[in-house]
Parts: sequence; C-alpha cells; structure tokens
Amino acid sequence: MHNVIIIGATGAVGRELLGILESRDFPVASLRACASARSVGGTVAFRGEPVTLEAADPDVFDGADLAFFCAGGSTSRALAPEAVARGCTVIDNSSAFRHEDGCPLVVPEVNPHTLDGMAGAGIIANPNCSTIIALLAISPLRALGRITRITACTYQAVSGAGMAAMNELESQARAWAAGEPLPTEVLGREALFNCFSHESPVGPDGMNEEERKLQRETRRIWDDDSVAVSATCVRVPVLRAHTEALHLEFDCPVSTEDARAALAGAEGIHLDDDPQPITATGMDDVLVGRIRQDHGVPDNRGLALIACGDQLRKGAALNAVQIAESLVSARA
Amino acid sequence: MHNVIIIGATGAVGRELLGILESRDFPVASLRACASARSVGGTVAFRGEPVTLEAADPDVFDGADLAFFCAGGSTSRALAPEAVARGCTVIDNSSAFRHEDGCPLVVPEVNPHTLDGMAGAGIIANPNCSTIIALLAISPLRALGRITRITACTYQAVSGAGMAAMNELESQARAWAAGEPLPTEVLGREALFNCFSHESPVGPDGMNEEERKLQRETRRIWDDDSVAVSATCVRVPVLRAHTEALHLEFDCPVSTEDARAALAGAEGIHLDDDPQPITATGMDDVLVGRIRQDHGVPDNRGLALIACGDQLRKGAALNAVQIAESLVSARA
Repeated sequence: MHNVIIIGATGAVGRELLGILESRDFPVASLRACASARSVGGTVAFRGEPVTLEAADPDVFDGADLAFFCAGGSTSRALAPEAVARGCTVIDNSSAFRHEDGCPLVVPEVNPHTLDGMAGAGIIANPNCSTIIALLAISPLRALGRITRITACTYQAVSGAGMAAMNELESQARAWAAGEPLPTEVLGREALFNCFSHESPVGPDGMNEEERKLQRETRRIWDDDSVAVSATCVRVPVLRAHTEALHLEFDCPVSTEDARAALAGAEGIHLDDDPQPITATGMDDVLVGRIRQDHGVPDNRGLALIACGDQLRKGAALNAVQIAESLVSARA
Repeated sequence: MHNVIIIGATGAVGRELLGILESRDFPVASLRACASARSVGGTVAFRGEPVTLEAADPDVFDGADLAFFCAGGSTSRALAPEAVARGCTVIDNSSAFRHEDGCPLVVPEVNPHTLDGMAGAGIIANPNCSTIIALLAISPLRALGRITRITACTYQAVSGAGMAAMNELESQARAWAAGEPLPTEVLGREALFNCFSHESPVGPDGMNEEERKLQRETRRIWDDDSVAVSATCVRVPVLRAHTEALHLEFDCPVSTEDARAALAGAEGIHLDDDPQPITATGMDDVLVGRIRQDHGVPDNRGLALIACGDQLRKGAALNAVQIAESLVSARA
C-alpha cells in the first residue's frame, strides 16, 4: 500500500488521474492532493471522500512514497527533487526530466525494462501525449523490421492545452450558436471550425516544441538515435483525443497482414478501421486503423496507419498510473 | 464574349462559381444555369438579375460555347460529350475525365501549357480540391530540384462533401449548444468535435479515393509518373478551407531560404506562418507557411510546410474560372 500525493490535482490530468487510481483500485493507503494557491482549502473527491487541497510545499512529501506531478515544468523542477530527497518516487507528467540521465522516460508497453533500476526514490518521466499515442500504436511493428523513419502528422485535441482550453472550445461553440463573439482568452484564437499549428514555441529551425518532443522522445524511448522523425503538429477543434496519421519506413519489406497480426495481439491497442476521437474519448486503448502499404516507399518497405487515443488517459494520466503499477508489481 | 452555361448552379461550387464569374468580370454574353429537377423553375442571381434554373438536357448546350460542370461524375459523363458535340468547351469539376486522353487536367499556375491544344470544343478537367491546393503550394519548389516524394496529410473541410454537409456541421453545433441530439443524415456521423478518415471508398489496397486522387492527379499534372505520393486524407470540423501538412523529398539539397524565395514570388500563394482555414476562407490565394527543413530526410533534401486554401474557391470554382480565363486570353 502506498502513500500517494498528487501535485496539480485540480487540472485536467490531475482529475483524470484521481479517477484512474480509483477505478483501477491502485493500492492507496493515504492520498494527499496539492493545487495552486487559489484552490487550496477546497476539495477533490477520492473514493467518495473529500480530500482537502494543500499548497505544494516541500514538506508535503514527508511520509509519502509516490508522487504524481501534473502541474507543469517549473513546479516539477522546483519540487520533484524535494520529493525524491524525502524518499519519494516521482512520476512526472511535465517535460522537465524527460532527457535527464537517471530519469527513465517510459511507456510501459514499449520500454518497461527502463524501470528496472528504479527500486527506490527517483524521478520517472511520463512522455508527451502525442509521443505516447504514436509509440504505443507502432512499437509492435518493430517486430517486422527496423523502423528507419516516422512521418507523423497530428490532429491534436485542445485538452493538451488544459481544462480551460477545453472549456473555451465548448464556450466558443455556445457563443457561435448564439450569434455572439467567440471567447478567445485561453486559446488566443478561434478554435471552433478551425485548425492551427500547435501553439508551442517555434525554434530557429522552424520546428515547434511539440514536433521536437515527438522526435527526441521517440529516440530515447526506442533507444535508437538513428530513427528519423518528421512531424507536423496541428490542433483541431476536438476536446480530448488526439488523432495521428503515421507513415512508416522499414529497412525491409513488410506486409499489412503481418502488421495487422502484430497489432491485433498488442497490449493497449484496439483495431478500428474508422478511428475517431469521439470513439477514443474515455477509452484506455488506443485505436489503430487504416493499416495499409505506403507505396510512397519503394520495395514494400512502407506502412501507413491512423492512431487515435484519449490525450488525458493513455496520453497522460493512465500512462502515469501504469508506470506506478509496473513499479508496484516489480517491488512486490 | 461568351455564352456560358453552368451545370449544377445551386450546389456549393456552382454558387461560388457564379460569384467568381461576376467579381472577376468574366466576359459573359449570356448565362444559362441548370440544376436538378427539384430546383428547376427557381432562380439564381447573376449580376443582379435572376437566372431561371433549367433542366440539364442535351439541347441546353445549343448556342453555348463554354460550360462549367459542377454536378458530379455521372452528370458529367452523360452530358459533357453532348456539350462538346454542340461546339462547347467543357470545364469539368468532377473526376469523370481527369485521366482521359485529350482532356487536360489543369492548375493554370502549374501546367498552363497543357491547354495549348484546346483551341476548340473539348473537355478540360478541374483537379480534385486537395490536389490543387497541394500542387499550387509546392510546384514553385520544383525550381530547387526534383521532388521525388510527397507525403501529404490533409485536414479537409466538410464543404468537399457539399453544401448540405456544411449546413449539417453548423446544425450539429447548434444542436450541441442546445443540448439536443446531433443531426447526422448527411455526414452519417458526428463531425463536430471530431475528425475522421475521408468518406470516399477505400480500395482493396487500403487507400481511399481521395488519397488515390492526390497520387494520380499529381503525377498527371506534373507529367511525372515517378513522383511518389504518400497520403492520409482526413476530414476535420471546418467549414470550407482545407489544410495540408506536406513533407517533401528532393533529389538534391534544398534550403528554406531558397524555398521561401521561390514561394514569395509565386502567383496564387500568400506566405503566412500561421496558416488557418478561417483565414483562408474567402481568399483566392493559398496560404503557405511553417516552411522548414525536414531533417527526417538526409542531406538537407527534405522540406516541410503547411498549405491552407479555400476548398470552394481555389480548390474548385476559382481554378475552373482561371482555366476559362486562360483559354479566353489564348484565343484572343
């Protein structure tokens, strides 16, 4: 049984995490929940009981052995080392530690072995949502040959920009229906009936941060610095599930029959030839479909497919809880 | 001056075409407009005057010299040869004649020379919307080197499925805001807050028709059977402008500076590093932005960019009128 603490319990990922810990019957002995100053003193519900929200000070980690961080990079950088110093294992949903030595970056279905050294306190990084969904969908295909290049074009839900962004997209739809101006305080633009390049900063090389994450995190999770990743990351007016068009190149001929067989038996994948975000919403599995030969690659070395997964579940909170479950079962 | 006839004048493309002929001051001597049985006897407006809708019988082409077909493949197959037999030049927006010998497939900025042989009656095919927008955006880059492969992932508006689909997406937003069930008679599904693989038929090889069109039409327009085209075509809840993420491979190193320079001077292109369908809506130019090196391709032979164009204008009606303008000026 574990003394668990959640940092950022009132955000979109934090709330999802509370529900997943409960529904998966994670062995929680005690639960503390932290939030930003304006929420402190309020409550969140866990197993039918109110949990009072606390400020995230270093001493909240005293007595805890497992901390989920869902509050952004600066909070993680400031407090995750404090938690570790107090004997806590941290599972961090931010990008702060994703490329730090000694902090594994983990999708449990893909690289569970990287948790082997994590017997005690330490930080485990939860990958970016679009990376988790893409790699969950395509990693089983590595049994067919080496994947030398991934071209990923994303259709990302606004949930990745937080609960306020989800609420704003809904408010935009209501305002549009009422013939009123669309509110844009959170997203900074109209998202309804629109799509736009991912809002993360664009570097001098023209890539945005989301595209860079797909590239860097894929290489680390696969432990393959040579895999080429081409990405275009785009937001679409969808609430909480990401869709990704994935074009793959292998170092040998591959068949759609073998691909389908590899994916049909894979954990966390549900084959669906009509993958849609509204279907994936609330699901633990990632939908994978439209599996076809990509004849743009010679010698039958290309495959294309579409993946679709709930950004808040497998893309964030569920993957974090699965990491915790892997640790618990390894330590049992 | 021309005696013009429009087949399918009440559809989304037909209406746009009427407006474009008017606003571009196309030399129209007389205009006749045809529509399906249920619209016959009604009117459409042209230059402030009502034009009575007629049934599309073969003899409506008597006396006409230019016919725009905007009514689907079966109507084009049945009636375009009748129009040609009566001395008409047909500009056909359907896919019926796009791969027929003697029927050029034309984007005027890209392959205007293919109109050279069309001095008299004959059929000119207007390409598919996603092909026009992609090729308008990337053809100027062929000055930098041979493009050997295009990977295109589309974010397509519902206008491509007709005016009823546009109306239904709006009705879905209104129904959602009112807490009512979403109407799905036209699209067959919820499009609001969703995205889905293009609804065209999927062949035995797993490609849908829209993806196949991008491949076949690109090869014909570029007169290059060796260019590889990988495509994933997806509908997004957007009303009338398509977005496309385009990843390109060249046979030689290319730079973003040269790419930007080639595109900045190109007809029909407006550079915009925040390309959005709501910006492109109603515009003649195609927005092109996020131009960057694609390091997924070795030796600096890769470029990536996003294109965004109004599906009803440059993707359909405007391109058709521009074809007609090219013919008129060639014959003048």
